[in-house]
Amino acid sequence: MDFKEHIRVIPDFPQEGISFKDITTLLQNGEAYKQSIDELRKLLKDLKIDVIAGPEARGFVVGAPLAYALGVGFVPIRKTGKLPYKTIQAEYALEYGKDVLAMHVDAIQPGQNVLIADDLLATGGTIATCVDLIRQVGGNVIGAAFMIELQDLNGREKLPDIEVFTLTQYPF
Amino acid sequence: MDFKEHIRVIPDFPQEGISFKDITTLLQNGEAYKQSIDELRKLLKDLKIDVIAGPEARGFVVGAPLAYALGVGFVPIRKTGKLPYKTIQAEYALEYGKDVLAMHVDAIQPGQNVLIADDLLATGGTIATCVDLIRQVGGNVIGAAFMIELQDLNGREKLPDIEVFTLTQYPF
Repeated sequence: MDFKEHIRVIPDFPQEGISFKDITTLLQNGEAYKQSIDELRKLLKDLKIDVIAGPEARGFVVGAPLAYALGVGFVPIRKTGKLPYKTIQAEYALEYGKDVLAMHVDAIQPGQNVLIADDLLATGGTIATCVDLIRQVGGNVIGAAFMIELQDLNGREKLPDIEVFTLTQYPF
Repeated sequence: MDFKEHIRVIPDFPQEGISFKDITTLLQNGEAYKQSIDELRKLLKDLKIDVIAGPEARGFVVGAPLAYALGVGFVPIRKTGKLPYKTIQAEYALEYGKDVLAMHVDAIQPGQNVLIADDLLATGGTIATCVDLIRQVGGNVIGAAFMIELQDLNGREKLPDIEVFTLTQYPF
C-alpha cells in the first residue's frame, strides 16, 4: 500500500511555511490504518519490546494499537498537568515552539525495553525528550517507530544511538 | 479479570472532591490493556461498526486499538486548533470546566455507523457533544463504549437514545 495516498498534505499549518502531514485521512480508513500498524509490526519484528511509550496526542493513535497488537503495555507521555500521579518532566523544543513533557514516575520499570511511537519524525526534539524521560527512570530505549519521516529535517541526528523505523518518507 | 485492580484511584485530582480514575496503570500492563480492549470487543460484537470516534486524548487509547482490532477507521475528536483541515465545532461542559471540541468536516461519511469510545463516562457532557458533532455530518451513532462508568453521575441520562457499554463501574 502506498500510504502517501491516504495522507493529506496541508500547506501553511500550523504556521506559514510548514507543510503539515495530516494522518487523520489515513486513520479514518480502516484498511489503511490497520495495514499501517501491521507494517510497523513487521519492521519491529526483531525487537524485544516490553512496553511502548508515545507522546500526546498523535503518538497515542500509533503507539496504542501497536501495543495492543504486540500484547505489551502503553505509556502515555503528556503535557504537564494532564497526568494525575507523580511525574518527571523535561522541556523540549518543537519544530515550531516549545513545551514541557511529563511521564509518571512509575510508568516504566528499570531495565524494561521501551519502543517510542509517534506519527511523525521531524526535527526529533520531541522524541529526544521522550528518550530523556525514559532513561531517567532506568528504561532501555530500543527503538523509535513513526508513520512518517521528514528526511530533510534530520531527526535521526538527534537520536544517534536509537534504531529508527519509518513507514513512509517525505523530503520535508 | 478484575480491571479495578489495575486502575489507580487518585483523590482530589484535578480538583478537590474529584476521585480521579487513573487508567495509565492499566495501560502500562500489556495483559490488562489487551484484555480490556478484547472485552470491549465482546460487548460490541452485535454492532455493525463502520468507524470509531474518540475524544482527545484518553479516548484515543481506547478507540484506536479498538478500531485496529475491528479493522475499522478511527476519527479523532480534538480541542480547537489541533486539527489541520476544515472542522465543525461544538462547546461542551466538562465534569470540571468548559471546552470546545472539533472534528474534521469530512471525517465521517453520511450514513456511516459510528461507535464513540472513551476511557470514562462521567456526566456524559463530552460524549453528548461528540454525538452532536457526528450527527451534524450525517453519521449514525450506534453506541458508546467506555472502560469505566461513574454510575452516580448519571451520564447515561445525557445519552438517552444511545446504547452504552462499560467494562467496569464505580459509584462516583
